[in-house]
Amino acid sequence: MERIITLTTDFGLKDPYQGAMKGAVLSVNPAARTVDITHLVQPGNILEGAFVLLGASRYFPEKTIHVAVVDPGVGGDRNPILVETRRFFYIGPDNGLLSPSVREDGIVRAIELTNTEFFRDEVTSTFHGRDIFGPIAAHLSLGANPEEMGQALDKIRALDLPRTVPEAGGIRGEVVYIDSFGNLITNIRREELSALDGAAVEVSVKNAALSGLKKTYAIVEKGATAALIGSTGYLEVAVNCGSAAEALGARVGDTVAVRTVK
Amino acid sequence: MERIITLTTDFGLKDPYQGAMKGAVLSVNPAARTVDITHLVQPGNILEGAFVLLGASRYFPEKTIHVAVVDPGVGGDRNPILVETRRFFYIGPDNGLLSPSVREDGIVRAIELTNTEFFRDEVTSTFHGRDIFGPIAAHLSLGANPEEMGQALDKIRALDLPRTVPEAGGIRGEVVYIDSFGNLITNIRREELSALDGAAVEVSVKNAALSGLKKTYAIVEKGATAALIGSTGYLEVAVNCGSAAEALGARVGDTVAVRTVK
Amino acid sequence: MERIITLTTDFGLKDPYQGAMKGAVLSVNPAARTVDITHLVQPGNILEGAFVLLGASRYFPEKTIHVAVVDPGVGGDRNPILVETRRFFYIGPDNGLLSPSVREDGIVRAIELTNTEFFRDEVTSTFHGRDIFGPIAAHLSLGANPEEMGQALDKIRALDLPRTVPEAGGIRGEVVYIDSFGNLITNIRREELSALDGAAVEVSVKNAALSGLKKTYAIVEKGATAALIGSTGYLEVAVNCGSAAEALGARVGDTVAVRTVK
Repeated sequence: MERIITLTTDFGLKDPYQGAMKGAVLSVNPAARTVDITHLVQPGNILEGAFVLLGASRYFPEKTIHVAVVDPGVGGDRNPILVETRRFFYIGPDNGLLSPSVREDGIVRAIELTNTEFFRDEVTSTFHGRDIFGPIAAHLSLGANPEEMGQALDKIRALDLPRTVPEAGGIRGEVVYIDSFGNLITNIRREELSALDGAAVEVSVKNAALSGLKKTYAIVEKGATAALIGSTGYLEVAVNCGSAAEALGARVGDTVAVRTVK
Repeated sequence: MERIITLTTDFGLKDPYQGAMKGAVLSVNPAARTVDITHLVQPGNILEGAFVLLGASRYFPEKTIHVAVVDPGVGGDRNPILVETRRFFYIGPDNGLLSPSVREDGIVRAIELTNTEFFRDEVTSTFHGRDIFGPIAAHLSLGANPEEMGQALDKIRALDLPRTVPEAGGIRGEVVYIDSFGNLITNIRREELSALDGAAVEVSVKNAALSGLKKTYAIVEKGATAALIGSTGYLEVAVNCGSAAEALGARVGDTVAVRTVK
Repeated sequence: MERIITLTTDFGLKDPYQGAMKGAVLSVNPAARTVDITHLVQPGNILEGAFVLLGASRYFPEKTIHVAVVDPGVGGDRNPILVETRRFFYIGPDNGLLSPSVREDGIVRAIELTNTEFFRDEVTSTFHGRDIFGPIAAHLSLGANPEEMGQALDKIRALDLPRTVPEAGGIRGEVVYIDSFGNLITNIRREELSALDGAAVEVSVKNAALSGLKKTYAIVEKGATAALIGSTGYLEVAVNCGSAAEALGARVGDTVAVRTVK
């Protein structure tokens, strides 16, 4: 049975690991179609992995099976889980990685994966992507019932995403992700800015004070910095045809302040 | 309907972007098969993207749909276009990116994409790969008629590729691309060298003067530099088991001169 | 006919090469499904390519066609070959690259690829991945008979992998691969350690002396170094949530000694 299985990991692209995981998937269901979201999450960086999964998984068709493995605690006491959401299935370690995505889509049920019949014959302590998560995804793609894969979980582990803070006449957030273009993506959502009630805003990050929100990058001149709502719905600071991270010397965790101006 | 859709972008491999674009494609046509040409074009480098697209897209089967997005002007006044060529379909921004590929294969017709029925429901100003180009490709793969997607265009924007210059007893070109092996790929075509009429040639680049064209890398000793016709039909300078770019300190734009010798 | 074709190369991910090879495969069999193992083998590093192929190819379903191209001698006198093993097909240059994988799975027969009917129409001297290996894999996926592709070979070229050395009360090996996490993977197999007969062991590499084998990374505290049997069955030295390569300043070729302790 054809079914889409996406992969989001920190396995890298030069090692045998992501290939081995795909092999394990295809060994269970040769007709499954794996789609890479990324394998370049910074090793062990659960927050980064959660952000990328959130930013990509929502655009896939209903019933897509999303497997995510950023798993520094592999073989330890964190549980392997499957979460059915309103539109998707998410499979991975219960360490917060899946949490923003499944909350956004709406959790239907969560299962702790304990039934070894759905695992690879040999399960190692260091590579659950290949030995547990991949095979589980493949069995699910063949129509296996999640309820037979383990027991229901009341709740899964949440990820402490940095929160925005309302301030007099504005809001304070931070840079949570820097993309390959050098764009600074913040934790301030479009809705929070809309709540500022149509007022003109000024966005400050590092030593830059940016006036108003632009519609797109190319509206400012080349090399100029702009604040805008990015494609995933978050406030973003970018340099047209350049890297805002480099231009401003900005890093993940830097404060971004939005103030309304008269 | 199964149909091959290739992707050539500067989205990088660590961010959610290329995954989101694939999700948008599969949401329209879950049976489409996406094939990555590359997502590692240098951000905003249209010339590099055009070169990679030209070097790979021609080898795909007829009716393949090639989507290319290197789009520093996204959301600005450049048009999104679809170009039907003799053997393929090309989809992307009208900024020169598609130009060398569609001219090589022969343009049948060009369409400016204006019919929003074929776009994603929500179109942002910063991510047309996900919101326009991906969905257009997916609808095309389902059999949609390009003529319903917009209006015919008389001409598309050309890319000013650096040209070769004929010289007394030879030809002068330049390095237009450096590959991962460090091979220097020039804009001098096999046909231009054939026109030198069988004469022996000397190829000069930086401080190297290379005698004759070799059949392959391994013909010269390890570490030695050779000039040859590369796999895409252009004159190339390479170091056997090494990087010509490093060995010669060469960069894109450096002059390469070919002279006939007695 | 649907059939899985894996790709392991040193072509990189930014150039047109891996895309062109996929195009050549799909031009012969549009229904073939290519799966990337990696394209990031260090250019020309046959040993590294062999290690990655060995570590991933065994997990794919039976009859998978594995194509591997790390081929510094392309166009020279090394032969293009196809090796049928107990469970798989392997295709690539006869330079040792396939050797560890086909020996592990058990060679059924080896063919020197000489029948140009199964090649691309135009065969260059520098890109056999696109012109020979890809098309051969695609024809095989369509049901072509390997015996018609060339003549039987008595033996293929072996790769001299570094061997382990038994020592009084232990075994000496070396680091053969460093993965993206910075884990040091050695050439010492689980079976060789089992032969130490249940004795407790001490693993030495660089200036670290590690007591015992751990079950997984997370068993030691963050930042601590551990020796363990990795997911591919080899002794491995790792830092929990860190890079052993960095922490120990270790490189491929460094000695790793295992001694039994009382």
